Amino acid sequence: MVGKRYEIRLAGQGGQGLILAGLFLAEAAALYEGKYVVQSQSYAPYARGGASASEVVISDEEIDYPRVVKPNLIVALSQEAYDRHFRDLQKNGILIVDSSTVEHVDTSKAYLFETYMVPITEIARQATGKEMTASMVALGAISGLTGLVSGESIMAAIATRAPKGTVEINKRAVQAGIEVGNKLREGIGRE
Amino acid sequence: MVGKRYEIRLAGQGGQGLILAGLFLAEAAALYEGKYVVQSQSYAPYARGGASASEVVISDEEIDYPRVVKPNLIVALSQEAYDRHFRDLQKNGILIVDSSTVEHVDTSKAYLFETYMVPITEIARQATGKEMTASMVALGAISGLTGLVSGESIMAAIATRAPKGTVEINKRAVQAGIEVGNKLREGIGRE
Repeated sequence: MVGKRYEIRLAGQGGQGLILAGLFLAEAAALYEGKYVVQSQSYAPYARGGASASEVVISDEEIDYPRVVKPNLIVALSQEAYDRHFRDLQKNGILIVDSSTVEHVDTSKAYLFETYMVPITEIARQATGKEMTASMVALGAISGLTGLVSGESIMAAIATRAPKGTVEINKRAVQAGIEVGNKLREGIGRE
Repeated sequence: MVGKRYEIRLAGQGGQGLILAGLFLAEAAALYEGKYVVQSQSYAPYARGGASASEVVISDEEIDYPRVVKPNLIVALSQEAYDRHFRDLQKNGILIVDSSTVEHVDTSKAYLFETYMVPITEIARQATGKEMTASMVALGAISGLTGLVSGESIMAAIATRAPKGTVEINKRAVQAGIEVGNKLREGIGRE
């Protein structure tokens, strides 16, 4: 599924759990699916609330350049994140837009990408009562939609890596995301 | 202090808190000291216990290449980490070796680096009772020895970022590291 190199960018704002979601994805792929992985985040000075994007590169081979350059998949959890990042996406790349938080989507470029509108923050709110689990819902949606990493691997990574007392809530958010991702995949007949 | 670019590698093994320490250092420098920062970790397939190194690049300017290539500072928390990484250090770079866990140091290269032997794991054990706070002691030692980021900034980053219920223990380990770092700095008359 992964092949030589698969680049993912989770973009949003501080407080949405982006870094933790990036770490879970990285550890799911590396520790449970035998991939090479680099996970990173970059900060601009005095960024309010911390990093606004978390990046993961997954590969069957050793990774030379560790930054995401032309993402195969972008999740945009805010309007600003959408506006800033969507043009970077690879042609035929996958764009998952949080329809709870992103109001305006540039439909003139829609033919270039496989775009999914998912009310990620709303799903997080319903599943866990906490908007900060939005990135976990996104992680589940990535798994359900693409099969890039399995739900089992993500759950295993959470079980060992999530901060004490947050394992169950994170798993619940991921599970809600997986279910939505599965429905999307069935809807488009993707295998 | 930082200048154009300062590269740090925290190396050890899974379970020593390397990633969390890298994140705290990154957020201390970016959110509280106005620097550009990239923080990353890479995984080899089926790495036992997770990533064995966490990297932080701190700069006064935007960061072009995000990986650590010639570290200005390396912390080695295990023999394997020492053996694998110390040759990468920049000439006149700073090498902090955990003398609790590293038995053999290559003294033939000692003149190239500024080397400090610090019983990091033992200090962690005494300060918190938990060896997994070793990376926090290292973080404090970096601050005390080099002034790269202030203790206040690290404590502020921990207060907002550390998993619930772990703020105090992490702060205690960092504080123990700062005290050792300060003593080392005074010992060599560094300003």
